[in-house]
Amino acid sequence: MSYASADFLRARHVRLRDAFGAAGFDGLIVTELPNIFYLTNFSGSAAIVVLTAERLLFVTDFRYVTAVESARAAGTAPPDLELIRVDGSYDETLVRVLQGLPGARVGFEAAHLSFSRHRWLARALGLEGGAGGAACRLEPTEGLVEEGRLRKDAHEIATLRAGAAMISAATADILSEVQAGRTERDVAAAVDWRMRQAGFQRPAFETIVASGPNGALPHARPGPRTLTRGDLVVLDFGGVYDGYCVDLTRMASLGPPDAEARRVYDAVAEAHAAAVAAVRPGVSRFAIDQAARDTLARHGLAEQFGHGTGHGLGIDVHERPRITRRPAGGAPPSEAGEAEAVETHMVFTIEPGAYLPGRLGVRIEDDVVVTSSGVELLTTAARDLAIR
Amino acid sequence: MSYASADFLRARHVRLRDAFGAAGFDGLIVTELPNIFYLTNFSGSAAIVVLTAERLLFVTDFRYVTAVESARAAGTAPPDLELIRVDGSYDETLVRVLQGLPGARVGFEAAHLSFSRHRWLARALGLEGGAGGAACRLEPTEGLVEEGRLRKDAHEIATLRAGAAMISAATADILSEVQAGRTERDVAAAVDWRMRQAGFQRPAFETIVASGPNGALPHARPGPRTLTRGDLVVLDFGGVYDGYCVDLTRMASLGPPDAEARRVYDAVAEAHAAAVAAVRPGVSRFAIDQAARDTLARHGLAEQFGHGTGHGLGIDVHERPRITRRPAGGAPPSEAGEAEAVETHMVFTIEPGAYLPGRLGVRIEDDVVVTSSGVELLTTAARDLAIR
Repeated sequence: MSYASADFLRARHVRLRDAFGAAGFDGLIVTELPNIFYLTNFSGSAAIVVLTAERLLFVTDFRYVTAVESARAAGTAPPDLELIRVDGSYDETLVRVLQGLPGARVGFEAAHLSFSRHRWLARALGLEGGAGGAACRLEPTEGLVEEGRLRKDAHEIATLRAGAAMISAATADILSEVQAGRTERDVAAAVDWRMRQAGFQRPAFETIVASGPNGALPHARPGPRTLTRGDLVVLDFGGVYDGYCVDLTRMASLGPPDAEARRVYDAVAEAHAAAVAAVRPGVSRFAIDQAARDTLARHGLAEQFGHGTGHGLGIDVHERPRITRRPAGGAPPSEAGEAEAVETHMVFTIEPGAYLPGRLGVRIEDDVVVTSSGVELLTTAARDLAIR
Repeated sequence: MSYASADFLRARHVRLRDAFGAAGFDGLIVTELPNIFYLTNFSGSAAIVVLTAERLLFVTDFRYVTAVESARAAGTAPPDLELIRVDGSYDETLVRVLQGLPGARVGFEAAHLSFSRHRWLARALGLEGGAGGAACRLEPTEGLVEEGRLRKDAHEIATLRAGAAMISAATADILSEVQAGRTERDVAAAVDWRMRQAGFQRPAFETIVASGPNGALPHARPGPRTLTRGDLVVLDFGGVYDGYCVDLTRMASLGPPDAEARRVYDAVAEAHAAAVAAVRPGVSRFAIDQAARDTLARHGLAEQFGHGTGHGLGIDVHERPRITRRPAGGAPPSEAGEAEAVETHMVFTIEPGAYLPGRLGVRIEDDVVVTSSGVELLTTAARDLAIR
């Protein structure tokens, strides 16, 4: 596994400290694991980070102490990481850490801390009923780490480019698994096997193999349906490589597609190309979506495209930016604070589709990075309908 | 896929309505997906349920509308489910649903709703600043649905028994993948493939293949290490079958184990048997853990067993009951409200281990159900050290 170097980690910490400092905070409690990975390279299942202007306090339990010590020795953990072993529970340990910061104004990740945990922490710190006094103050923040993750640094771009090259190289073999007579479930297992052989740590999400009418369900799970001559088949698969997610959708046809299948396929391919062509720094993410949507509308498929055109990729397989239709009544709560323009070094999918209930579905998906001059396609697997 | 019948779903709703009614609530907002699956058989990635004394309001988005309508037609959704399609965002739709319950006292799942979402909902409902008036009241609840999930019903027991039989039948073939010269990562991919072939929908967690000294890291990820003659190998794998998780750990030795490996293996096997023998209705979950711990202590391995003896199994791969050491300073916040005695129809793992840093690790894990007369081992794969 290749990790972000100490220099990259330090740059991420500098940006985050600037961000919470500008918001008037003395420190930030980071509870969201992908954010902890971003800040420390730690990929275990439990940890809490408290970043202050001076210190990086890292709380984890006995299961990971050896791993963290090894990472420090190997130079893949931040050099200034201070390891604190959980004593009691995570939140009890966190309270002791926070009691060591009297008077500080400390932020927490409000989208990643449950109501229960916040209430328990506030009580344990004596923050309820206005007592306060020596304890730190605990205040909600939104998206401070995610804001940094939005524009990938050179380590992240290199990792995503390598993952995209791997998935692209594996795609021809993966499409060869689509065979009449096999079930969707069998094909999905074979796709997952090939992705592991290609070098991915794990699937980025549950592989979709949706055949014939099942293709019209954009989030169908692979089922017992047997692939049959005449089917269009949606293959949507992704992998995690060195902690970063790539995501690809390709279409296969069992035998020559009929006129309707060909017409829908060509329209989606045109929408895909139009959306890719719309990507450049400064353009509205809604405009990228609209480019796909307008193309499908010209082909009479406006109503058949129910989802957004794309989503950000990185440590999470669904992150910002959201390449979606402009919300009718202003941004819903889940999108609050998300900027409209895409910027250099954002990475996201372009995946328009068209779904004809009871008949078929088509989706074509690639991963792109915004460059200073426009767009680079990270995934390069052949995009044509694979006829088998 | 086999689903809980309408009768089982109804019984779960009756129990939950009784529970929130007894706590003085008129309804409960369910946001945790495993809880939603438990109440409705819905296994998609996004939904909200509002259960009142009379109604089951089910909010989902366009991606799942067809699936839910099909489930209703097929009789696998609750007959009284009222489908509400998301308009705008989930939380905006939820607010409109709650505005239809003026004056009601509605609970939410405080452990499964973020601080951000709660704050947004409270504002949108006009609950901040004490205005209130016609809106419903929104109040935290803890574990109301989980309390029901703790004791499995007959559908759940049957599903877990079937999954346990499947994983047990697959274990000999899975152990045959442990071969000197292969990497941990290769073996893990082969295990996952065999689990898919055995009929599991997906892994219940990332498969662990930890060889030689890596075995001493209880949560090691399969890596590039090549399996070598003389290694002990920990294989910890699980699968999801009809929505329920089973979990098994077996040990293999590449060539005859040396005296230390044999000694540690035998001690862990004895601890495993002692813990299983301690299981019966009414016994303390701490006593089950202590049975394993005492055995290991007699073999001088007290310090080598750092984790708990087991965890509940069901829709989640880690749920209650926690079969752990009695907490020194009383229950930590994450265990608040968890009863001490195990009861009939609870399902959990028994998985003591011993870890010798830099040398080897041993863990043996089975899944058990508490019966009226004691305990039933759900997993039945041969428990001896597989010498290969």
